[in-house]
Amino acid sequence: MNSRFSVPLPLRDVRVTDGLWAREMDLIRTSVIPYQWEALNDRVPGAAPSWWAHNMRAAAKVLRAEKAGAARPHTGGGSSMVVQPEDESRPDPDAFYGWVFQDSDGYKWLEAVSYQLMLRPDPALQRQAQQAVDMICAAQEEDGYLDTYYTLTGRENAFSNLRDHHELYCFGHLAEAAAAWHQATGQDDLLSAARRFAACIARHFGPGKERGCPGHEIAEMALMRLYEETGEEAWRDLGRFFLDVRGEEPSTFALEENRRRAASGLPPLPVTAARYVYHQAHMPVRQMREATGHAVRQMYLCSGMADEARLMGDGEMQAACRRLWHSTVNEKMYVSGGVGGTHAGEAFSRPYDLPSDTAYSETCAAVGLAFFARRMLQLEPRAEYGDVMERALYNTVLAGMALDGQSFFYVNPLEIDPAACETDERLHHVKPVRQKWFGCACCPPNIARIVSSLGQYLATQNGDTLFIHLYAAGEIRTVLNGGEITLRLDADLLQSGNTRLTVLSGEAEGTIALRLPGWAEGASVSARGKPAREEDGYVYLTGRWRAGDEILADFDMPLRAVAASPLVRETLNQICFTRGPLVYCAEEADNGKRLHLLRVRPEDAEKAEAFTAEIGGLPLPAVRLPARRVTVPDEAPLYAPWKGSETEQTTLTLVPYFAWNNRGMGEMRVWLPLEAGR
Amino acid sequence: MNSRFSVPLPLRDVRVTDGLWAREMDLIRTSVIPYQWEALNDRVPGAAPSWWAHNMRAAAKVLRAEKAGAARPHTGGGSSMVVQPEDESRPDPDAFYGWVFQDSDGYKWLEAVSYQLMLRPDPALQRQAQQAVDMICAAQEEDGYLDTYYTLTGRENAFSNLRDHHELYCFGHLAEAAAAWHQATGQDDLLSAARRFAACIARHFGPGKERGCPGHEIAEMALMRLYEETGEEAWRDLGRFFLDVRGEEPSTFALEENRRRAASGLPPLPVTAARYVYHQAHMPVRQMREATGHAVRQMYLCSGMADEARLMGDGEMQAACRRLWHSTVNEKMYVSGGVGGTHAGEAFSRPYDLPSDTAYSETCAAVGLAFFARRMLQLEPRAEYGDVMERALYNTVLAGMALDGQSFFYVNPLEIDPAACETDERLHHVKPVRQKWFGCACCPPNIARIVSSLGQYLATQNGDTLFIHLYAAGEIRTVLNGGEITLRLDADLLQSGNTRLTVLSGEAEGTIALRLPGWAEGASVSARGKPAREEDGYVYLTGRWRAGDEILADFDMPLRAVAASPLVRETLNQICFTRGPLVYCAEEADNGKRLHLLRVRPEDAEKAEAFTAEIGGLPLPAVRLPARRVTVPDEAPLYAPWKGSETEQTTLTLVPYFAWNNRGMGEMRVWLPLEAGR
Repeated sequence: MNSRFSVPLPLRDVRVTDGLWAREMDLIRTSVIPYQWEALNDRVPGAAPSWWAHNMRAAAKVLRAEKAGAARPHTGGGSSMVVQPEDESRPDPDAFYGWVFQDSDGYKWLEAVSYQLMLRPDPALQRQAQQAVDMICAAQEEDGYLDTYYTLTGRENAFSNLRDHHELYCFGHLAEAAAAWHQATGQDDLLSAARRFAACIARHFGPGKERGCPGHEIAEMALMRLYEETGEEAWRDLGRFFLDVRGEEPSTFALEENRRRAASGLPPLPVTAARYVYHQAHMPVRQMREATGHAVRQMYLCSGMADEARLMGDGEMQAACRRLWHSTVNEKMYVSGGVGGTHAGEAFSRPYDLPSDTAYSETCAAVGLAFFARRMLQLEPRAEYGDVMERALYNTVLAGMALDGQSFFYVNPLEIDPAACETDERLHHVKPVRQKWFGCACCPPNIARIVSSLGQYLATQNGDTLFIHLYAAGEIRTVLNGGEITLRLDADLLQSGNTRLTVLSGEAEGTIALRLPGWAEGASVSARGKPAREEDGYVYLTGRWRAGDEILADFDMPLRAVAASPLVRETLNQICFTRGPLVYCAEEADNGKRLHLLRVRPEDAEKAEAFTAEIGGLPLPAVRLPARRVTVPDEAPLYAPWKGSETEQTTLTLVPYFAWNNRGMGEMRVWLPLEAGR
Repeated sequence: MNSRFSVPLPLRDVRVTDGLWAREMDLIRTSVIPYQWEALNDRVPGAAPSWWAHNMRAAAKVLRAEKAGAARPHTGGGSSMVVQPEDESRPDPDAFYGWVFQDSDGYKWLEAVSYQLMLRPDPALQRQAQQAVDMICAAQEEDGYLDTYYTLTGRENAFSNLRDHHELYCFGHLAEAAAAWHQATGQDDLLSAARRFAACIARHFGPGKERGCPGHEIAEMALMRLYEETGEEAWRDLGRFFLDVRGEEPSTFALEENRRRAASGLPPLPVTAARYVYHQAHMPVRQMREATGHAVRQMYLCSGMADEARLMGDGEMQAACRRLWHSTVNEKMYVSGGVGGTHAGEAFSRPYDLPSDTAYSETCAAVGLAFFARRMLQLEPRAEYGDVMERALYNTVLAGMALDGQSFFYVNPLEIDPAACETDERLHHVKPVRQKWFGCACCPPNIARIVSSLGQYLATQNGDTLFIHLYAAGEIRTVLNGGEITLRLDADLLQSGNTRLTVLSGEAEGTIALRLPGWAEGASVSARGKPAREEDGYVYLTGRWRAGDEILADFDMPLRAVAASPLVRETLNQICFTRGPLVYCAEEADNGKRLHLLRVRPEDAEKAEAFTAEIGGLPLPAVRLPARRVTVPDEAPLYAPWKGSETEQTTLTLVPYFAWNNRGMGEMRVWLPLEAGR
């Protein structure tokens, strides 16, 4: 491992106590994880079955029977993305059902559970998780292969459709879960399963073996993690192989498709990589300049690339990461930290195309952006990475889950009119209320695993320098130059930017670096007797730290009127309001219908009156400010000579975007039209 | 016929000499009509075959052979919308090919040709048209049935799929063409074919017979026209029947679908009408309040309803027309007179949803709006109908065809970035340049027939009152109270609103009524010695008209800044510029790229300098006015505290919207952002 770079602290050394985030973590533990366990076991009344437990048991049963000499049944179905039973109430116990990537649901659950177990012991939960681990291990084939879809439908087709069938995606989630489970419990069982599956994959793919890469990325970063967890370089090298095969000519996706076509007697298609923009396989990753295609995949790819750059000291890869970062956050990111401007392919649109109402901005893509941002921070501590990570986490990631933890957004628009969603095909992907669960259940478990592991985003360490990236209250224990210290971070960004880092106990020599948030102008960070130095948006304080030492930071966070680049057509002559890391929005619950008739002035941000709004049982920082509302006369013509709009005085109430749609269905709008000057 | 209502003058009595419109008519005659004849005969290199002539000949051949005792071949294909030959170079001479509604292409051509023949004799063109007429007549079955699709694929399936198979749509276009051909040539051949087909339909459908109505409207207005041309009330009554069956429960569309399903052993679907919004068959037409579904169909339906209201004095139907008019023009019409806010179903979107870039605004729908408007004018002379008719004709209808008559827009956006169209699936329907022809070639022939018959929109007459609705230069001959007069209309709306109507010859007692355009404030219309009275936006001048009498009208038409209702989200804080009936737009050819960076002030319309732009060989009225352009600093962040945009002075050049995209591919924008006040 290259010591130029920083790594997260072990999760059990970062205890988050923050009012906002600790509550979210509790919701994950008390609501999301138990609910998802029921879902994995098809015990949620009215919900579409997950088939996860069924598939694991079926694979184990088939493999046991095979060991006892029985022939493995072939249920077929190797070409579809989802398999439905003819009669849901009487599934075939030997058959695979559900989406081809359904195995990953259980892995994501296990990963979140593992983080929770690191935060606080929970023997009952651990027993439940052990049951899941045992089921997984029992479904693994002799040679390490582990994917119930192909085990049950025809093993001979394994690795034949990497583009669509998410086999390596499932592996990736398995490896992520295995590393977390190992860290949480010290147990080798799942880690061993992941290593055996990795070895099986490595026997198949690699330099001098077959070429291929995942259609949906995650294996890349998972292999890097498996290497970090085990020290076994083979996994790192396989991850790099998967990165570098991408976009090579001839395209491996095209070759595998042509093999399938040949088997059906169809003529081959062109084998150029350029066709695979959706999969980020249209050019070699080292040459990429623009974030494109399916947004979650692009973010997972970037995360794997950044891991590779760090773990192999690969400067060329790091340069590619910087270019993709620039494209993502300076040309294609919503103010809410969401990415993915179009539902067509759940994808990045062209630069500056950021529609508010037809936005995709998938929750998982914002999670992926936070993954990418933390890895860029590990590569080089620059505040811009922390700013974006914070923006994604405090806005879109949080918005993805209801404040009661019971329902979820997959798509996160910045403007909504529920009446339009009902009838408009162009908005069919936009839901006006959070949904209980999804047939393709990626977002809820992704929220569960990132929120549960927030500590890994809060701080990282590089040698004797401890970096504080996020200002969520908590306790951090670490060792600097051999000396152990425990620090308390006092912060509450829902209320103010006043932040204090206190050494609670221990003594150590070293540097503590705090991020200067991009939203805090003229911030001061100081610690008595510790010389400060600022670089790339971090303040470095160096010295000998003893109990009672304090670092005081005052991050001013007034309500601020924010504009998008004039290159963004959608937000022409509109502004939004932010405070600290929070983006605000106007909701129908406070402001009535037809929010697009509101008119605001940037300078009225100074007149804003803060108050506490009770939303979903949570006291949240809201604001009221003067605004105008256009009055629409009866019988007004659709078009008329301009004479300015008649407006009337009104009070605009804004609440944090992450808390929207916790008071019933209604209109919502982040960007608000400027009052015309005349 | 009810004398309360007005009717168009015979087309040969209205000679249009207007610089703009006469040129368009010439283009139709010299370019569109000859090109389309080649297209109908599959002689356009590189273009997809139309199969029109092929199908007519095939049907005639099969019918001749049947008469001679041969069995009719069954090529089948009764369930698809389009039939492709296995080998295009060797089509089966007995088979039907192309879209099921392909017959209508020839009818539309014949209708346009007929109007042109009324405008000026052209023996060569008339011989060509006679050839088409003879082909059509030869394809008619013994019992009057005339639809090559079912004649060639299986007559027993005729009238079994009125919803999708456009059989009655083809009939409608046949009847329109037949009436026009009869007027143009006095010949009965095509009219007789239309009457025989109408009789065949009337034997099948009607009170006490089978229920059913067209999936794509036009038969309704065509039947009304057939009645007006022949005086035979059966056609009027059948048209009314088709109107009133629409939306009745149980839905005839559902019943026919269930018959098809039953034949395939499928269970029936619900028979509620509510499913058929796309077809305007979701409720009885007399109850409709909102323009919905496929926009062309809705406009054709409204036209048929207005005809029925006029020809049967049906006040209830007229009230429904007024409601649908209100919904269309006050809630769902683009400033360009286009309708259809969404490509999903080529349809009306919800009220005030009028996106500029993803607009559908099909050329044919604007043609349909002009149909509807003229019929509303016939019912009641109110300037608002004329205003909308003029808006549709001078902007979207004209924009549908290139200034050289060689290419056509199907979709008419109000904002375009060609680079976005290339890659954005949400814009797949928007073409950045006009197309040569279309597989589904509805728009070019629709332009051809409405432009060629412009005289019917220019003036109508009710007893001894002559109405002038449009200000296109020309000569009008009419009889008022038994006295014949010829009038010359001097007007050139491309240059100014100065208009003069001069009695050239003859003498008559009566009233001449001129529309006061909605865009002309404080207009004066007067004629020496003729008392004037104003009502509903028309000035009525009554007296004895003799050669040399003049009506002088001065319609002021400065450049005007126009705003949309604040209920239109898309045009928030934006304005467009109009002059007289013309909507203007900014094009890349004059203003460079990134048109959304332009900023305008309404009051700068007064500073506009008019000049003549040479576009497509045509001198057109353009304007220059001062504006600002936002400067985008390098490395500008995507989001930043609002501090207003840096702008620089620029000169904005605007050209008529109808002339856009005649100087190569480039950006275009009708609505321009207001300069922020501060």
